[in-house]
Amino acid sequence: MRIKRIDLQSGETVFEDKIIKESIIKILVNGSELSNIICSPSHLDELAVGHLFSEGFIESAQEISSIKIEKDKMTVNVEFKKEPADSGIEKQYVTTSGYGQAASGINLLHGKGFKPLEKPEIFDAKIILDLFREFQNRSVIFAETGGVHAAALCSDDRIISFKEDISRHNAVDKIIGEALLGRKNGEGLYMLFSGRISSEILVKSLRFGIYLIASRSAPTDRAVELAVKTNIRLIGFARGFRLNVYN
Amino acid sequence: MRIKRIDLQSGETVFEDKIIKESIIKILVNGSELSNIICSPSHLDELAVGHLFSEGFIESAQEISSIKIEKDKMTVNVEFKKEPADSGIEKQYVTTSGYGQAASGINLLHGKGFKPLEKPEIFDAKIILDLFREFQNRSVIFAETGGVHAAALCSDDRIISFKEDISRHNAVDKIIGEALLGRKNGEGLYMLFSGRISSEILVKSLRFGIYLIASRSAPTDRAVELAVKTNIRLIGFARGFRLNVYN
Repeated sequence: MRIKRIDLQSGETVFEDKIIKESIIKILVNGSELSNIICSPSHLDELAVGHLFSEGFIESAQEISSIKIEKDKMTVNVEFKKEPADSGIEKQYVTTSGYGQAASGINLLHGKGFKPLEKPEIFDAKIILDLFREFQNRSVIFAETGGVHAAALCSDDRIISFKEDISRHNAVDKIIGEALLGRKNGEGLYMLFSGRISSEILVKSLRFGIYLIASRSAPTDRAVELAVKTNIRLIGFARGFRLNVYN
Repeated sequence: MRIKRIDLQSGETVFEDKIIKESIIKILVNGSELSNIICSPSHLDELAVGHLFSEGFIESAQEISSIKIEKDKMTVNVEFKKEPADSGIEKQYVTTSGYGQAASGINLLHGKGFKPLEKPEIFDAKIILDLFREFQNRSVIFAETGGVHAAALCSDDRIISFKEDISRHNAVDKIIGEALLGRKNGEGLYMLFSGRISSEILVKSLRFGIYLIASRSAPTDRAVELAVKTNIRLIGFARGFRLNVYN
């Protein structure tokens, strides 16, 4: 789009620039509306599957019989092989709200699908920092527009999945969804992340089963507390040659 | 807390560092639970009032007879003079979810409390960029911990309110709440913001009545579209001596 730039030193210019896309998609399960998600409109199948898993509606992608994306209506129609077991949970999502103000995932901490690790895993700081350089380089393409978050799933010394979204949460759900659709869970994998690590992001990661989250940004106190309790490795401020270990 | 830093060049050090606080507060209205909000635990009264306003439960702070904060229980008890009019809206919030994935505020676009401006207001780029320097300096205090968002409400050439939160949305709700408690709406005021301007932030701002939002970060396409439709001034990438005007 055409944008006017005002520069106090050199005056006004009009130029063409890219702009971040924001869409609202509706997830329908067996024909009923479950969630409205504000997102970057890409990888909607991965997003839907990751969202359904993170929110406790499914334990694996095998519970899904079909996914149909209708781009014009911005809907993702997910058919479950059977009705979701916990209709109590379901009701919460009929019309969602919250925009980062709400307490998603917290129920999961007290419920099923939450497996603490036996002990913190050993990790190699050099590999993580090397991968972060690759992560940053990939992000640069979209960083043009500013304000987009990225998450990557890693195995050993390489990135196996990389996704971006205007929402931190969606970026994570997209890599989770992609793994699940490939019939993988997070066991033996770890995650690189661009954004703040809140307790919600930690809970998602725990449920998925990864052993380490590393971010360029900071964790919150509740995320650290949870990480210590559950033996998930938590790394913040991974930049250049340095990183901080929070447990 | 004690953090271990690994530096590939100079080795490991252990040091004390601050960490971002994350809390979950419950907002109760006339004794019934309305919302769970993940937030930075400060200015909870402003946050509650801003949240109630932004979500369409109140039109002004005069509808509230009392606010009681119970820090130990992390609850904010709000008493309305009468029951909220629209019990249909209320139901959506009994147990919120969504963590930035949901479609908050969207209903408001189609409902009451949404006033397009007659025409875009004139603004002074120099004043905005000067205030952004002040804004950045204030943010620096908390920027130590990383990952916190800030919003400021401005009148003429000065900042009249400045608030921070781990959530972009809460930062905005806190400045809105503070203004409402002082019996002001946004008329004739404008906002500085640290984060991405999504359609949700734009809708909040419109409802509150400010005429301009300026961010250090980028707007999304939907935010620009809405801004053009409603004549709210939208400024992005306000940094140093430059800013971009999106409508």
